[in-house]
Amino acid sequence: MTETVTVELGKRSYRIDIGAGLIEGAGEVVTAQRPGVRCAIVTDDNVDAAHGDALRASLDKAGIGHTTLSVPPGEPSKCYAMFEKVVNGLLEARLERGDLVLALGGGVVGDLAGFAASVTRRGMDFVQIPTSLLAQVDSSVGGKTGINAPAGKNLVGAFHQPVLVLADTGALATLPPREFRAGYAEVAKYGLIDRPDFFQWLEKNSDEVFAFGPALAQAIAASCRAKAEIVVADETEKGQRALLNLGHTFAHALEGACGYDGARLVHGEAVAIGLVLAHEFSNRMNLCDADTVVRVCDHLKKVGLPTKIGDIPGPRLDADTLSRFIAQDKKVKRGRLTFILTKGLGQSYIADDVPPDEVLAFLKEKLTPSGNNLS
Amino acid sequence: MTETVTVELGKRSYRIDIGAGLIEGAGEVVTAQRPGVRCAIVTDDNVDAAHGDALRASLDKAGIGHTTLSVPPGEPSKCYAMFEKVVNGLLEARLERGDLVLALGGGVVGDLAGFAASVTRRGMDFVQIPTSLLAQVDSSVGGKTGINAPAGKNLVGAFHQPVLVLADTGALATLPPREFRAGYAEVAKYGLIDRPDFFQWLEKNSDEVFAFGPALAQAIAASCRAKAEIVVADETEKGQRALLNLGHTFAHALEGACGYDGARLVHGEAVAIGLVLAHEFSNRMNLCDADTVVRVCDHLKKVGLPTKIGDIPGPRLDADTLSRFIAQDKKVKRGRLTFILTKGLGQSYIADDVPPDEVLAFLKEKLTPSGNNLS
Repeated sequence: MTETVTVELGKRSYRIDIGAGLIEGAGEVVTAQRPGVRCAIVTDDNVDAAHGDALRASLDKAGIGHTTLSVPPGEPSKCYAMFEKVVNGLLEARLERGDLVLALGGGVVGDLAGFAASVTRRGMDFVQIPTSLLAQVDSSVGGKTGINAPAGKNLVGAFHQPVLVLADTGALATLPPREFRAGYAEVAKYGLIDRPDFFQWLEKNSDEVFAFGPALAQAIAASCRAKAEIVVADETEKGQRALLNLGHTFAHALEGACGYDGARLVHGEAVAIGLVLAHEFSNRMNLCDADTVVRVCDHLKKVGLPTKIGDIPGPRLDADTLSRFIAQDKKVKRGRLTFILTKGLGQSYIADDVPPDEVLAFLKEKLTPSGNNLS
Repeated sequence: MTETVTVELGKRSYRIDIGAGLIEGAGEVVTAQRPGVRCAIVTDDNVDAAHGDALRASLDKAGIGHTTLSVPPGEPSKCYAMFEKVVNGLLEARLERGDLVLALGGGVVGDLAGFAASVTRRGMDFVQIPTSLLAQVDSSVGGKTGINAPAGKNLVGAFHQPVLVLADTGALATLPPREFRAGYAEVAKYGLIDRPDFFQWLEKNSDEVFAFGPALAQAIAASCRAKAEIVVADETEKGQRALLNLGHTFAHALEGACGYDGARLVHGEAVAIGLVLAHEFSNRMNLCDADTVVRVCDHLKKVGLPTKIGDIPGPRLDADTLSRFIAQDKKVKRGRLTFILTKGLGQSYIADDVPPDEVLAFLKEKLTPSGNNLS
């Protein structure tokens, strides 16, 4: 069964389909929406090997001309050089403004392909075909696209909405369990932002989600709906969209301090620890009750996610390094720290005047041998 | 006296000031609009030498912090490498989203700086301070920004409107006469698109324009107003904005066939010849009377612009090469040629079904020894 979510953005509204077999059916859906269109598939070498042929066969069947541009898998492909390669590839394929870029892959491919589409001929349309859980519930919804710069991640890019998202849950079966689990941290995040009922539902249904039962598509759809609602209210992140960063300021600092070494810590794992830290810090600021902190921590631990800094393998991280990364985060406004804090389960809000000293003191506590999670 | 034109684009509306001494007064204007802002001046080495100090002194006087990023002068700077350099420079200067990029220079600087601003932190605001006539009447108005790709010029970019344009007519005095004259071709173009009265006014006042009299600022203001009106009606070039390409399909082919060699032909000169060719071709298609063709040709010749292909120095161009460039132009829709043709003085329209054979036959006629302009 296919779930559908609509992102209501006026003329730029688009549909998110969620279900099994959507890659095999992509040609039919695309040609119904855009008769006569030609496509460029932008993907990475791993995803191409797993799903490229199925997508190409589907386009062939629908009579859609296509070309494939593949980049090496992994975060380093979100760079200027690959951006240039993909844009030039789209131009050499002689795609016209009305043609489509199909971003087939995880967050890296979606961000890179979307950004390339946004600037090719000053704006080509693109379709997201996310193949990781993280991309299905997060990066493929909302229109943030971009690459990394030496000064930091995601600092170069555009707000460019897709015209369609096809989230094929069948593709998730080929993911390594660790990556699937990491994506789940973002699913839980939507409950913790402002949907306590959804968090409660996840507490009950997470086993079925991890067993690829019908709850999986339902959880993805609920996540997309939650994100879409926030994006619609604040497309270009002037205000409320910042709520989506719950747990992320800590997460980015953890990733940075680990040198973005995926062997130690992948993004979703960092988010899981970041979510717990955000709740603990809120508790320390007398905003959030201790029971909620325990509940959040327990659920993430139950599905196998790390929940404390000490869970990260490798050299010990120190509080000063983490604080430095936090101060460099994009979410700094004229020198003051902006954090998403919470007043309880699903009651997060934007705090834009968090004293850096409090954060440092909190992290120092967390990183002393006795400074463990409440749980 | 400063002329003012407003580009009405709702929330993204902006003001174009036109007059002498605006660079010296920039700091005051910027700080009035954005108290507390910091700026990055993006410029080229020549313009920096001519006007950089005046702009920096003005910013200093207004207490505005600033940094300068300069690129080599000339079209080759509209490339991926300089794009990367400017974006990284803006990030290293730690500019925040609310800070400003000041594009000080001609069309190359404006296109490059505007594109860099549009993608830095997914969108920084920028101010155009155009220092060439071409940039003042054309590229700094309308929000088209971008760089060139191996596949063609301006194929990579964004629609990104400035928040303010300061067109300092004093800066034009330092331009080589040839460059000033080339910019005038775009001024005349606005009359020929849909403002016959303005063209007639230019016929009477061009001497004063070239003598830097008060008619200069008036001509620039009228041009900006004309362009703004078309841009407002069609910001992202889905329809009527194509009228701005009057003469440009031929012009781009001429520039391409000359290998973009500015010693032989600069853009405005190509536009002058392109305008005459568009009128001649319209006449050949029985759309435009011969008197209008003569009148257009006479006026452009009077101010010293080239008006026929044979005016271009160097090796003879041939019709097949030109036709090939025309077929490659961005303005091709599903294989059919889109041209801006005209039914008389200031009566241009979009013809989207021009037969390529007719164009080739026309160019062959033009390029036989006897195939000269009507005039």
